[in-house]
Amino acid sequence: MRYELHYWPEIQGRGEFVRLALEDAGANYVDVARQPKGMALMMRLLEGRALARTPFAPPFLRAGKQVIAQTANILLFLGPRLGLVPKREADRLWVHQLQLTIADWLAEVHDTHHPISSGLYYEQQKSEAKRRAANFIAERLPKFLGCFENVLRRNPGGYLLGKRFCYADLSLFQMIAGLRYAYPRAMAKLERKHPLWVALHDRVASRPRIAAYLASKRRIPFNQQGIFRHYAELDPA
Amino acid sequence: MRYELHYWPEIQGRGEFVRLALEDAGANYVDVARQPKGMALMMRLLEGRALARTPFAPPFLRAGKQVIAQTANILLFLGPRLGLVPKREADRLWVHQLQLTIADWLAEVHDTHHPISSGLYYEQQKSEAKRRAANFIAERLPKFLGCFENVLRRNPGGYLLGKRFCYADLSLFQMIAGLRYAYPRAMAKLERKHPLWVALHDRVASRPRIAAYLASKRRIPFNQQGIFRHYAELDPA
Repeated sequence: MRYELHYWPEIQGRGEFVRLALEDAGANYVDVARQPKGMALMMRLLEGRALARTPFAPPFLRAGKQVIAQTANILLFLGPRLGLVPKREADRLWVHQLQLTIADWLAEVHDTHHPISSGLYYEQQKSEAKRRAANFIAERLPKFLGCFENVLRRNPGGYLLGKRFCYADLSLFQMIAGLRYAYPRAMAKLERKHPLWVALHDRVASRPRIAAYLASKRRIPFNQQGIFRHYAELDPA
Repeated sequence: MRYELHYWPEIQGRGEFVRLALEDAGANYVDVARQPKGMALMMRLLEGRALARTPFAPPFLRAGKQVIAQTANILLFLGPRLGLVPKREADRLWVHQLQLTIADWLAEVHDTHHPISSGLYYEQQKSEAKRRAANFIAERLPKFLGCFENVLRRNPGGYLLGKRFCYADLSLFQMIAGLRYAYPRAMAKLERKHPLWVALHDRVASRPRIAAYLASKRRIPFNQQGIFRHYAELDPA
């Protein structure tokens, strides 16, 4: 199966959680909107009448005749096919539950710099962003990171399921990498208290296919158009 | 199977999406935190060390030995067991995709009155709430409602899958009911242009078990502690 990933071509964004799974599995895929004329194709599928079951937004995945949207739903579909989740239904639901918690967390990261509207510039909501980011750093970031540290502590072995690797490990790696880019000061303080996810990050980064991917041009660098953005005033000392 | 639903006892909130599925199916369930000593039991599970796989937040469902959290994940689990989703994997993924879109939408509704922090009172973020709600009414609400109207138009039959009823229909009903409570003026304008989800709301409300549930004391009324809240200043004429 040759998978077609459809996502905005210039950011990591939500698409990156799918890219990491495809890359780790060595899957055959094309990142459509980064190919010539790919962006027009993606927009036609999104805005046109070709599909009875149209995605609300990118990312979406085309797998043969199926079109699947919502990041966590795409990973629910890909997990078994790429060998990135165990067979037992209870395990799959648990991994999906972790993925949905990551999705909520990611939406909160986005809203730290866009607390009023995605349709306005950061500069148009900067004062609100300062309040929201301060609350995120004080309350929400420690809660999410503490939750994942707990999961790693209660399921020893180095990954979220213990010794068995799964796609949620890739997503947790991405959250840590992104938060280090966006909130280096806040993260430096939190890392001292959370050795387990710090170690998980490095373990994932050194998986051979992930290491190769991160060193390649396929990995879009973090930038100020993505979900993880660094504004020094939102991450004070 | 006797299901145990764990959720905050005084609001509809996210738990209501699960309650509606259990009620429509006539399932055997107990709403734990609304029973004597139930709240303490829920908090012990949430904060204690009893579970290796602890939920991040309510709602969560106990089904025998399994504990499943995240609203959409609970519905993914219950759907096949309650006969609220077709058998085909492609259909189940599509219904789940709609449910995840509803989850995103619901989080945006919450943030209209709490754009800075859930830990602060509305009055402490009222000016930000006015900006965010105005943007929600102008941009986001029409986008979400237009999306679901499109799905109903492209899959004729009265429900999201066409003639086949599924749990996402119950959730869409709940969104419409909640938004009518919170944003009556904005909704009245949008309803004129969207006959299909208006009809879906009434179709769901008249399903015998749902009608009985809505008339019962089990249905907690909308109130100013829930996700759907009515503040007149956020819904101007």
